[in-house]
Amino acid sequence: MEEKVIKAIQDVYPDDFAWCYGCGRLNEEGHHFRTGWLGEQTMTIFTPKPEHTALPGYVYGGMIASLIDCHGTGSAALALHKKNGQVIGDGSDAPRFVTASLKVDYLKPTPHGVPLKAVGTLQEIHPKKWKVETEVYANNHLCARGEVVAVVMPSTFLAKEEK
Amino acid sequence: MEEKVIKAIQDVYPDDFAWCYGCGRLNEEGHHFRTGWLGEQTMTIFTPKPEHTALPGYVYGGMIASLIDCHGTGSAALALHKKNGQVIGDGSDAPRFVTASLKVDYLKPTPHGVPLKAVGTLQEIHPKKWKVETEVYANNHLCARGEVVAVVMPSTFLAKEEK
Repeated sequence: MEEKVIKAIQDVYPDDFAWCYGCGRLNEEGHHFRTGWLGEQTMTIFTPKPEHTALPGYVYGGMIASLIDCHGTGSAALALHKKNGQVIGDGSDAPRFVTASLKVDYLKPTPHGVPLKAVGTLQEIHPKKWKVETEVYANNHLCARGEVVAVVMPSTFLAKEEK
Repeated sequence: MEEKVIKAIQDVYPDDFAWCYGCGRLNEEGHHFRTGWLGEQTMTIFTPKPEHTALPGYVYGGMIASLIDCHGTGSAALALHKKNGQVIGDGSDAPRFVTASLKVDYLKPTPHGVPLKAVGTLQEIHPKKWKVETEVYANNHLCARGEVVAVVMPSTFLAKEEK
């Protein structure tokens, strides 16, 4: 498997939607998760910071949930972007998804200090809704399994914006 | 409902287990979630930082998942501590739980800039395992619903510690 995401869908989110703490390229304090294709699957790679511990030596579960969350919305965006006949770098903006539900099973303690690799499998369940099954690996060991249902961002999000 | 947690279970986690990025009092970079009793339920209150955005004006879903996660393990620790006949402040250490599974349903966009209140309902499903149903409120509106299954921390966590 490739170990680096070259072209990420978050690179082509419209500026107004690129402020997510998890994956927004414009959020200076955020994690900057980046999600790209891995064949027919999707991939996000992230190395937690030293403070992202659960117990010493292990990764914080909330960080793993965050990774699965943004990997899910990013994967759904990749899928719809592709379905629309677009590719990253062709000048088109990516569609923006939000999370309807998130589920994480923590299968084993996740070791700290190594890159985490989230690999997603996509299923379209409605033209505006995708399910993303994700496996999170550390040192090639499966540590967590997640499921995100992501839906196209409702237009009300911008209407209610508090700037 | 009370709007401040006075006595939190995380205040009496043993020092070795107080480094969680979400709720560890010794993790200087962390969120410092604090969970206490609210009658027969449990409560955690947290105000996200400005950078914890999903889209501008709304709270990052991974932060809500993190809140539900640590609120779940904290609630389970409160329950077992109480079952053991102990109270916060009697000099006893709290038991430490880890998360087996986490589920979050995002019911509506969560407004940024106000305190979030997680309220948990406990169910013992095994002497070492609790299920915690959690509702997250902002401005008294229910924004997310979560479920955590928390288990007593296995002793292997310390044995494998990478310090």
